[in-house]
Amino acid sequence: MYLKIKKSGENVKNHIGKQSIILRNKPSIISTYSTVGPKEGAGPLGKYFNSVLNDDMDGQMSYEMAESHISHTTIMKCINGVGLEDKDIDYICGGDLLNQLTATTFASRDFDIPLIGLYGACSTMTLALCVASILIDGGYGSYAIAEASSHFSSAERQFRAPLEMGGQRSPTAQWTVTGSGAMLLGMGNGHPKVTHVTFGQVKDFGEKDPTNMGGAMAPAAVHTIKTHFEDTGFLPKDYDIIATGDLGIVGRKITEEMLLDLGYDVRDIYMDCGESIFDIEDQKVNCGGSGAGCSAVVASSYLYEKLKNKTVKRILLVSTGALLSTTTSLQGESIPGIAHAITIESED
Amino acid sequence: MYLKIKKSGENVKNHIGKQSIILRNKPSIISTYSTVGPKEGAGPLGKYFNSVLNDDMDGQMSYEMAESHISHTTIMKCINGVGLEDKDIDYICGGDLLNQLTATTFASRDFDIPLIGLYGACSTMTLALCVASILIDGGYGSYAIAEASSHFSSAERQFRAPLEMGGQRSPTAQWTVTGSGAMLLGMGNGHPKVTHVTFGQVKDFGEKDPTNMGGAMAPAAVHTIKTHFEDTGFLPKDYDIIATGDLGIVGRKITEEMLLDLGYDVRDIYMDCGESIFDIEDQKVNCGGSGAGCSAVVASSYLYEKLKNKTVKRILLVSTGALLSTTTSLQGESIPGIAHAITIESED
Repeated sequence: MYLKIKKSGENVKNHIGKQSIILRNKPSIISTYSTVGPKEGAGPLGKYFNSVLNDDMDGQMSYEMAESHISHTTIMKCINGVGLEDKDIDYICGGDLLNQLTATTFASRDFDIPLIGLYGACSTMTLALCVASILIDGGYGSYAIAEASSHFSSAERQFRAPLEMGGQRSPTAQWTVTGSGAMLLGMGNGHPKVTHVTFGQVKDFGEKDPTNMGGAMAPAAVHTIKTHFEDTGFLPKDYDIIATGDLGIVGRKITEEMLLDLGYDVRDIYMDCGESIFDIEDQKVNCGGSGAGCSAVVASSYLYEKLKNKTVKRILLVSTGALLSTTTSLQGESIPGIAHAITIESED
Repeated sequence: MYLKIKKSGENVKNHIGKQSIILRNKPSIISTYSTVGPKEGAGPLGKYFNSVLNDDMDGQMSYEMAESHISHTTIMKCINGVGLEDKDIDYICGGDLLNQLTATTFASRDFDIPLIGLYGACSTMTLALCVASILIDGGYGSYAIAEASSHFSSAERQFRAPLEMGGQRSPTAQWTVTGSGAMLLGMGNGHPKVTHVTFGQVKDFGEKDPTNMGGAMAPAAVHTIKTHFEDTGFLPKDYDIIATGDLGIVGRKITEEMLLDLGYDVRDIYMDCGESIFDIEDQKVNCGGSGAGCSAVVASSYLYEKLKNKTVKRILLVSTGALLSTTTSLQGESIPGIAHAITIESED
C-alpha cells in the first residue's frame, strides 16, 4: 500500500513519495550505547542510560575535549558490546554542535574507521541514522555507527555566554544535554529494524529569538512528519510512539496543534525527547532539554529498550535541528529549522 | 580484477577492500556549475569557471550571507542548466566551513529539497560526491546535488583575524578560495560517471601549526590514496589525473614523496587544486589556495571539462580536510586530517 514507487528517473526503486525511502533489507540496530552527565542521570530516564558520569569533565582538560572523550567511549562501547572491534566497522556517521564538528572528528581520530561527518544541529542523530541505514541497506558496508553528542558546558560558552557569568535564562530557553548516544547498524535477526527514512527540508518561518529554538524548529518537524505520512501511507495509528528531538514544551505544543490542524491527531502517541529527559520543574531546565545528544541518548536507551523488549511495535524518531550560528543571529537573521525522521520497528 | 568482494557480513556486495565502494550502476554527473570570486577568476583556471563575480559581496550585507548567496545561485544554475527545477531534485548533499554550516543551510532554505548537511572541512566536496553517488547508485533517489563552498573573507575573520587588521601571513599559509562548485548526479548516458568511492579515516600525525594545513592534511591524503589503490586494484597508471583538494605546495610535495616511498609514483599525473587555482607567485597566495570551495570549483569546471571532452579517461579526486577549530588550536591540540576519494570516468 505504501510502496508507490516514484515514477520519474531511471534508477528509482527505493525512493517513495517526495522525500522518503523504503529500506527493503531492513537494517538492524544490533547494539546501542548511551553516556550522559550527572544532571541527565538524575532525570526521569536516568535508569535507562548505560553510563552516567560523576563529573561532566570526564577526566579531560576542557569541556570540548570532555565531549570528544564521551563520544569516543560511547562509540567504542557500542562496538565492543557485541564483540566487535573498530576494524570491523565500515563507517562512523556522526556529528555534534561544536564549531567545525570537533567533538566527532577528535573522537574518531583514534579509530581505524572512515568518518562521514554530518551536521544537522540537534537533528544530527536521525540524519546519521538515515545515512547509516542506507549504507547498510544498499550493501555498501557491513556495519555502520550512527552517533551524536552535545555537552552543556561546551555549548553554553560557544553559543551563549561564559558559564562564570551566571546569566539569567529566558523562559523559553532549553538546557543542552551532556551526552552521546550511539547505535550500531548491520544486517541480522533478533534486533529492532529500520524500515523507512524521511529526509527533511530546511524550513524558515521567520523566528528570530535564539532562546526559543523549539518555536523555530516546530514547523520543520511538522513538515517532515506530514510528508512522512503522505509519502509512506502511514497514519498516526500505525505508530506507538512519535518522538521529536528537542522541541521542548513550547515547540511540542506548537507541533501537536499544527499537526491537528492538518488532520493528524498524534496527541496519544507523541513525546518529545527534550521534554522527557529532565524533570522540568525540579531540574530547572525551563522548556526542557536540547542538543544533538538529547534525542541520541533517549533513542539509544529508553526508546531502544521499548523496541527491544517489544513493549512497542513501531516508533517514528524525528530529531529536530535549529540551523543558526552566533554570527547569523548577530546579523539579524531568522532561524531555519530541519527535521529528519526514521521508522524503527521491533522485530516481528 | 578489482572486484574482490569483502567476505564478512551478510549484505555486502558493493563494499570492496577496507574502505572502498564500487558503484555498479555508475551514476552520471549530468551537470556542473561553478562560481568564483574576482581573484579566482583572474587565476590560471579563470576561463573554466561558469561565473566570475565582480564583487565578492555578491550584493549581500555580509561575507557570510554572500557565501550563502553564491552557494544558492550555484546550486540553482546547476539544476536549471539541464532544464530541471528544485522540486525534481531529491537531495542536496553539501557543506562549508562556516560555524554551524550556515552557508549551506541558509542556501538551502529557499529550495524544496531535503538537505544532508556534511562536514569534512576542505574535503567536503568529495564527501558530498561520495554520499550523493551512493544515493543515486542504490536507487534512493533520481537526482542529487553535491556542493561545497568557501569564502576568503568569511573564513579569514572566523578562523584567523579581522581583515582590517592586515596581519602578515605565514609562508606556509594558504588563501581560502571564494567560490561554490556544484554537481548534479543522476542516471543517464552521455556524461562522466562515478565508479568508485573511498571514504577516508581521520589521521593525526601531530602537526600543530594552523598556518600549515597542507602538512597536516598530507598524511590523510596519502592514507586514502594508498587504501584506494589496495582496495580497488587500481594503480597510478590507471589514472590520467590524481587531484588532491588543497594541500598547496608544501602538502603536495609531502604527499608525492610519501606515496613514492610506498611504491606509488604519481608524479606525472598528480595535481593539487589549491596549487593550480592561483598563480602562486603573481597572486601572492603563499602556498596556494584552500577552502571547501577550492576542489569544488576546480572539479566542477576544469576537471569536469576534461572528462566531458574526453581529454582524460579517468580521474581520482581526493579533497582533503584539516579538522581543526580555533578552539582546538588555542587549547594546544594537533590538527587531524581527512581525505575522501572518488573515481570519475569519461564515458566510453
